[in-house]
Amino acid sequence: MTAITINGATRLFGIVGDPIAQVRSAEVFSQMFADAHRNAVLVPLHVLPDEFESSMRALMALGNLDGLLITVPYKSRALPFASRLGPTARCIGALNALRREADGTWAGDMFDGAGFVSAAERTGVALRDRHVAMYGAGGAGSAIACELAKAGVATLAIIDPQAARAESLAKVLREAFPACETVTATALPATADMIVNASTVGMRAGDGLPGATGPLAPSVFVGDVVVSETPTPIIQHAIRHGCRFVTGRDMHAGQVDALLGFFETPH
Amino acid sequence: MTAITINGATRLFGIVGDPIAQVRSAEVFSQMFADAHRNAVLVPLHVLPDEFESSMRALMALGNLDGLLITVPYKSRALPFASRLGPTARCIGALNALRREADGTWAGDMFDGAGFVSAAERTGVALRDRHVAMYGAGGAGSAIACELAKAGVATLAIIDPQAARAESLAKVLREAFPACETVTATALPATADMIVNASTVGMRAGDGLPGATGPLAPSVFVGDVVVSETPTPIIQHAIRHGCRFVTGRDMHAGQVDALLGFFETPH
Repeated sequence: MTAITINGATRLFGIVGDPIAQVRSAEVFSQMFADAHRNAVLVPLHVLPDEFESSMRALMALGNLDGLLITVPYKSRALPFASRLGPTARCIGALNALRREADGTWAGDMFDGAGFVSAAERTGVALRDRHVAMYGAGGAGSAIACELAKAGVATLAIIDPQAARAESLAKVLREAFPACETVTATALPATADMIVNASTVGMRAGDGLPGATGPLAPSVFVGDVVVSETPTPIIQHAIRHGCRFVTGRDMHAGQVDALLGFFETPH
Repeated sequence: MTAITINGATRLFGIVGDPIAQVRSAEVFSQMFADAHRNAVLVPLHVLPDEFESSMRALMALGNLDGLLITVPYKSRALPFASRLGPTARCIGALNALRREADGTWAGDMFDGAGFVSAAERTGVALRDRHVAMYGAGGAGSAIACELAKAGVATLAIIDPQAARAESLAKVLREAFPACETVTATALPATADMIVNASTVGMRAGDGLPGATGPLAPSVFVGDVVVSETPTPIIQHAIRHGCRFVTGRDMHAGQVDALLGFFETPH
């Protein structure tokens, strides 16, 4: 671990959110920049809702600020600040990263799902042609679904107690990724060989599985967005049946890699 | 030296200027905060002239930003951003530090001269009742003159090749500090027992003294704003005559102490 230094020539990155004290990114990215001997830090920026648009304009006008992460509750409101959007951001109408380009314009994209795919790829499991069942059609689910469709899964069944939310996401995905057969469902399809929990079920003690899965074949690949010190119910279920899996922690590590790549792209 | 850490709960300070890469404060203050085990950093903020007012408003609206240093060319333009001004800032119409108060308003003051007085006091020399001759009536001279008047010097003779600038400063000082007899002069008064160089003379190789001083009595106290690795001409002159003195480096160290005190005041 290299010591973090700050001087007049330090380049700035920030994470914009409300609240902000709980974010991990400031620590993680500042240390990664130091370890890479890059004179840059990522600082927390506590932007209040009434000030969001004016604060974003002013922050992006700073001559030494090169990028921003955007967290709750601003991922949708940040969309107009990018002059160029990546496919996932465009598809779901939200972004979590902005980067200043050489010409002074800003590129934006959403990496909440990229971390999942990059963590899955690191396990050596192929995603192409999978039949995916995904629980949860909120922000995380939307981003992951986009990335899975981009990665070439064959079918995607979206399961969410809010049927309208599931249908709305399915519609967006069908338009953006016609090659992926996207449907909504109320229970796990028998054909599923990949199960993703993108809901919050598993966050609270006593939570069970996000839905009835029955016994799993060992070829089923399991993923969970819930970050937990100990295995969540669905990860325990995967372990019990000898399935490969990615946890919420794996997904977050994967997202850091994806974001660093975005911030490091020569510009 | 304690390692600098940054996390979501880190409180922010910034230094606003254009250009910004050359400033020393970001390094000095961030390290001092770390050494004091205070979860805070001071980052460079490169604000362009066209954006100054909107950037200041947005920066001061950040929920986790507690203070700003203001450097060239914004010390005068920053004045309206303080709801309450310290005496030196009010007197000379410029500030170099802003602090968020408990009630959300901002206090501002100018510490460019406070560092000189605090460095002088650290030598054990009394300033009260001194007869001061000061070369240079620019920004640094104005701030130092105010602080000397506040510290109770008896008389102040301001020497500047730009006579109108000297007279304008003298007028401001006479109004703000009627107890100090302030005049302009074209040469060193014979009664002077303190000489301050607040001009840039001594910055360039080959510069001599800012004015003819003749031999100095050892009781004369000498000060210089010029920051230099080796003694400047006027400091060499002081050393040669056995006079006590403060250098530009002493003054800068004194200013850091004064600013830390300002930023640490409970609020």
